[in-house]
Amino acid sequence: MPEIIVGKNPVLEALKAGRPMNKILLAKGIRNDTAINEIIANARNQGILVEFLERPAFERSFQNQPDAGRISQGVLAFASAKDYVDLYDLLAIPKKTGEAALFCILDGIEDPMNLGAILRTAGATGVQGVIVRSRRAVGLTAIVAKASAGAIEYVPVARVANIAETIETLKKHNIWVTGIDMDGKTDYEKVDFKLPSAIVIGGEGRGLSPLVRKRCDTIARIPMKGQIASLNASVAAALVMYEAFRQRMKM
Amino acid sequence: MPEIIVGKNPVLEALKAGRPMNKILLAKGIRNDTAINEIIANARNQGILVEFLERPAFERSFQNQPDAGRISQGVLAFASAKDYVDLYDLLAIPKKTGEAALFCILDGIEDPMNLGAILRTAGATGVQGVIVRSRRAVGLTAIVAKASAGAIEYVPVARVANIAETIETLKKHNIWVTGIDMDGKTDYEKVDFKLPSAIVIGGEGRGLSPLVRKRCDTIARIPMKGQIASLNASVAAALVMYEAFRQRMKM
Repeated sequence: MPEIIVGKNPVLEALKAGRPMNKILLAKGIRNDTAINEIIANARNQGILVEFLERPAFERSFQNQPDAGRISQGVLAFASAKDYVDLYDLLAIPKKTGEAALFCILDGIEDPMNLGAILRTAGATGVQGVIVRSRRAVGLTAIVAKASAGAIEYVPVARVANIAETIETLKKHNIWVTGIDMDGKTDYEKVDFKLPSAIVIGGEGRGLSPLVRKRCDTIARIPMKGQIASLNASVAAALVMYEAFRQRMKM
Repeated sequence: MPEIIVGKNPVLEALKAGRPMNKILLAKGIRNDTAINEIIANARNQGILVEFLERPAFERSFQNQPDAGRISQGVLAFASAKDYVDLYDLLAIPKKTGEAALFCILDGIEDPMNLGAILRTAGATGVQGVIVRSRRAVGLTAIVAKASAGAIEYVPVARVANIAETIETLKKHNIWVTGIDMDGKTDYEKVDFKLPSAIVIGGEGRGLSPLVRKRCDTIARIPMKGQIASLNASVAAALVMYEAFRQRMKM
């Protein structure tokens, strides 16, 4: 499955066929003809991010495939390596399996190696689904698929526009939401993950965004020693997912 | 600090000055003059790996700096972002701090992002030092330094030619050596990490090498659920380092 789709008609056809996509790039200054307008309308309906880039930045997106840049007509789509699932389908999983909900919410993970590693750990700890952000976050790309070592096939991922709103939805489903932050007041081992739970992990470098933080039921910290200020995001996620798994094994 | 040193004299001078290096590459077919012989002899004395590459492979090593290839005289050295420490200096640390030894041994980690994340977690969990392999493993490069988020400055790293022999040395220092492998018989939470300990993590994909595995006192597994066969190496290392940290906090 190619990861990049170039040209007006190929991208439009892929959109109409419902092919999952992470993002569509359009070069600034391209003529706004019917096809382009249809691409933008279709992408909007499907919640796919459309970005307009100046020509040089647009050309750089092709990296190792400069030929593709020439035939692109200013239109480029990044296809997903795997379909996203609907948030409500994700929320239905605990009822089907009879286990208490356990989700992992990623508030802006940008590194594909980290997302791959998180999916891998999620698959190993019984996390029922992962929720990612559509903006300023990596999607289900081929690099993520590889880094997940196959886990991308087993762990359903939902993509949402607004993590803070999604947390509200989860709370209405009686899910207890724990954000992980280095200055949290509670030790993460003291959180009761046997309850229906969601774990929220912030993006690399920036951590939880303020709005997301405010919506969490608890902010928990991972204890640390020495001069290190924070852990790698996929390591922090793994420690908390394993703590939940550990508590549930002992039930 | 530049990561790459090119040309006979610059590399020879850097070697004589004791500049830490990860590897030296020589193009096959270069004339074996005095400088080249001195480079090889110096590298051998300092335990720095020397690789001979065919010209096309040698040229590819320069990647984004093709100009460097032209002036290289067939000689290229990768400098370290940080000095390695001697294994015996590492072994002396627990005596100085009065804490029981806690080391992490990496049997062939090749991904710089993983090594960086492992150093970061090591710094956060009171691991006194990390031991890496000189062959088929990533060294302390600039990418590792960045991925470590500063931890490379705090966590001493020793580089050894032979991990199996190093384990024997550690055992003579009364250090209990636990290898992590998915088919280990003991749950990693059942290992007593309050004892002077070393944790051995295998390389990505391949895991522990058979000789290393044989020298470990215990092989412990990390429990997993579902269809996932293994965890990312930096995640596995983090779970075990945090288990040791957790046990020691409760002492």
